[in-house]
Amino acid sequence: MEQQIPYKIYLDETELPKAWYNMRADMSQKPAPLLNPGTHQPLTAQELDGIFCEELVKQELNETDAWIPIPAGIRDFYKMYRPSPLVRAYCLEQQLETPAKIYYKFEGNNTSGSHKLNSAIAQAYYAKKQGLKGVTTETGAGQWGTALSMACSYFGLDCKVYMVKVSYEQKPFRREVMRVYGASVVPSPSDTTEVGRKILAEHPGTGGSLGCAISEAVEVAVKNPGYRYVLGSVLNQVLLHQSVIGLETKAALDKYGVKPDMIIGCAGGGSNLGGLIAPFMGEKLRGEADYQIIAVEPASCPSFTRGKFAYDFCDTGMICPLAKMYTLGSGFIPSPNYAGGLRFHGMSSTLSQLYHDGYMTAVSVEQTKVFEAAEQFARVEGILPAPESSHAIRVAIDEALKCKETGEAKTIVFGLTGTGYFDMVAYEKFHDGQMTDYIPTDEDLQAGFDNLPKMD
Amino acid sequence: MEQQIPYKIYLDETELPKAWYNMRADMSQKPAPLLNPGTHQPLTAQELDGIFCEELVKQELNETDAWIPIPAGIRDFYKMYRPSPLVRAYCLEQQLETPAKIYYKFEGNNTSGSHKLNSAIAQAYYAKKQGLKGVTTETGAGQWGTALSMACSYFGLDCKVYMVKVSYEQKPFRREVMRVYGASVVPSPSDTTEVGRKILAEHPGTGGSLGCAISEAVEVAVKNPGYRYVLGSVLNQVLLHQSVIGLETKAALDKYGVKPDMIIGCAGGGSNLGGLIAPFMGEKLRGEADYQIIAVEPASCPSFTRGKFAYDFCDTGMICPLAKMYTLGSGFIPSPNYAGGLRFHGMSSTLSQLYHDGYMTAVSVEQTKVFEAAEQFARVEGILPAPESSHAIRVAIDEALKCKETGEAKTIVFGLTGTGYFDMVAYEKFHDGQMTDYIPTDEDLQAGFDNLPKMD
Repeated sequence: MEQQIPYKIYLDETELPKAWYNMRADMSQKPAPLLNPGTHQPLTAQELDGIFCEELVKQELNETDAWIPIPAGIRDFYKMYRPSPLVRAYCLEQQLETPAKIYYKFEGNNTSGSHKLNSAIAQAYYAKKQGLKGVTTETGAGQWGTALSMACSYFGLDCKVYMVKVSYEQKPFRREVMRVYGASVVPSPSDTTEVGRKILAEHPGTGGSLGCAISEAVEVAVKNPGYRYVLGSVLNQVLLHQSVIGLETKAALDKYGVKPDMIIGCAGGGSNLGGLIAPFMGEKLRGEADYQIIAVEPASCPSFTRGKFAYDFCDTGMICPLAKMYTLGSGFIPSPNYAGGLRFHGMSSTLSQLYHDGYMTAVSVEQTKVFEAAEQFARVEGILPAPESSHAIRVAIDEALKCKETGEAKTIVFGLTGTGYFDMVAYEKFHDGQMTDYIPTDEDLQAGFDNLPKMD
Repeated sequence: MEQQIPYKIYLDETELPKAWYNMRADMSQKPAPLLNPGTHQPLTAQELDGIFCEELVKQELNETDAWIPIPAGIRDFYKMYRPSPLVRAYCLEQQLETPAKIYYKFEGNNTSGSHKLNSAIAQAYYAKKQGLKGVTTETGAGQWGTALSMACSYFGLDCKVYMVKVSYEQKPFRREVMRVYGASVVPSPSDTTEVGRKILAEHPGTGGSLGCAISEAVEVAVKNPGYRYVLGSVLNQVLLHQSVIGLETKAALDKYGVKPDMIIGCAGGGSNLGGLIAPFMGEKLRGEADYQIIAVEPASCPSFTRGKFAYDFCDTGMICPLAKMYTLGSGFIPSPNYAGGLRFHGMSSTLSQLYHDGYMTAVSVEQTKVFEAAEQFARVEGILPAPESSHAIRVAIDEALKCKETGEAKTIVFGLTGTGYFDMVAYEKFHDGQMTDYIPTDEDLQAGFDNLPKMD
């Protein structure tokens, strides 16, 4: 007999994962290595040490260890907001009149408002351990920047954040939250870096992009002794840290004997999706179980669904390493939609390889449909979701409605990555009927592809 | 041997209280009854039924039943965000180097951002049960309005919110959150009511107050068939619903064999404080245990510490019942400080009686000191607190520092009523050194006292 599932499944503090899970160890086809943009040779640890913290470089390059222990100093911080709840969406199910069973892993129960804190605290921990003065980073929606500010404040590190200008303007209060935690925040592109000045000269009036902001943050880290650059998504190390999401999700489901049929996550650079699916993908890679895994991206920035699988720069300024990934071209600047966290031209190399090899699928959705789902969800489940997270809600609702048609009682799990408290401008536009959808034309995309680096 | 206390104590869903606790049943000196403002006679249930829902009137007048069962329909909603965590502030203790043990009951883990949802859902439930079309209310900081919007959306009730103008302007996004949940929001005083027009004529350019907004909301409820007025604080029924906070707190502490020495809560109208202390006060009233109970109020609106214990109107427009309470006079409009939820001229009659009878003490604090505590707390405990809640943080820190002096290892519990995500304007002013303190002079207060209704 099925046990009564509570509305919220909270794991005990003692059930907090003790190690992160590294999907790459179980991939027979490993993701392609990062390349030096000058020589096109795989980057060595030594080369990467100039940009990233040493321990993080080791994690970045580690393709063999399936489990990396979580240091006690990080676990202590995790205990302030983890384990996060896995929620059974009883109210949503009832409203949809679906036989599907819907669960969501809610990562918004911390001040950064999202899952980003899981990797921020890890990266700050290793920076502190290395004796650094501070770190630099970019932020889109502001969630990563807030998370990093909190983590740096906890360890007493300096924190410089380059924030995508369009988000900076849409979310004036995000800057203030970061200030509460002692960070300095600069709208990007800015005139404080060479690469920023160059981008401003070429694209005057641009709202910026994650790619631009990354270029600026990397430049500042490389030029200032005692600083390193940290990134909130895309990289292997970030997916590793975020595996805590999936590990908790799986532990909570296992506790009640529930096996999901489908796992849905929004995908910008891949940090949430890669973390949420990690242990499930592990079982799939090892042939132990099967799950349908769906990445959801905005129609305005469709790297999986319309991008090319190719080596490309991670940043607009073309100073970062080359990564093999699904990409729209590092010169592609997506329309200023309201999901700043999903406005990245590329995608995690690990997820790109898994997608390429058929281990997961992807769909793209338009933002007005996303906000409809967000509001519907908020009204029955209480939580006001972030626009990014609402991409996953949209598809979870669509899949639950398909179940209603077919009568299948599928178990759907999706990642509710964060809250939308700082996205009220977007909700306002939606309510006032001023939100439009933007889908790039094939010509728009071709311009991005033409810009891909020529490989031998 | 003391059990290892986790960072967060989460009760199980099955441990959610099944009944609210009614402090009045254990008070030998009952709070004075509400009076008809015309006749100065105690209000009957029949008279109150025109303003409030019937079941809520029964709860308002019930001085004998110590336990009121929580209906299943309300408990189901509670399960979406309750039990809320009781957190051991290990990081704060460490930073303060205090022997004190500090706990806080965190009520901000829901979209309304505060404890207000506990009573909002109860009041909406009874309104729905009575077959009403909708409800009207006032909101200060916006937390109550948001909570009520969420509750009304859940039950399909119309919701009209009068929002104190100064908060409406400081917190533009609060309005949008309420719109997500389908509420209509009007800045108060407004020209949509008789009383609003009168107040505007007498005080042109006023930023409003809770007292003004109450008058408007009551007028609209009374004039529109199928509508009733609901209030987020002050009333006995609200303290009753909020007892869920204290009951959970006590259950969590009991689980680990912890007995607090001191319980601290911020106090505006008294909803949080009355809820948090309820079961502890019950033990105190019955002579079973003793606790030091401290109400914290803003120096700019010091109803306990500088007010008079007298019959007064709950609203500025003088259309509401008279309540015997500590009051600054219904004409007192506090300076536009940044803790909108604490800008009420009066105080719960129940708490007023308990304070008068020596069962609790009160202190007032200045807002710059409050924001210093807020930032200190945010940086070590992660959570960005609401300005209202930060009043309690200020005093908890002060008490913990006293313990450092004396070497006493007191156990301090305080109520962290909510989050400050919509208070970033206030944090910005604080950071920019533009926040000032305002303490009313004796003359300011005398003007309010001169305005008290003449009783026989």
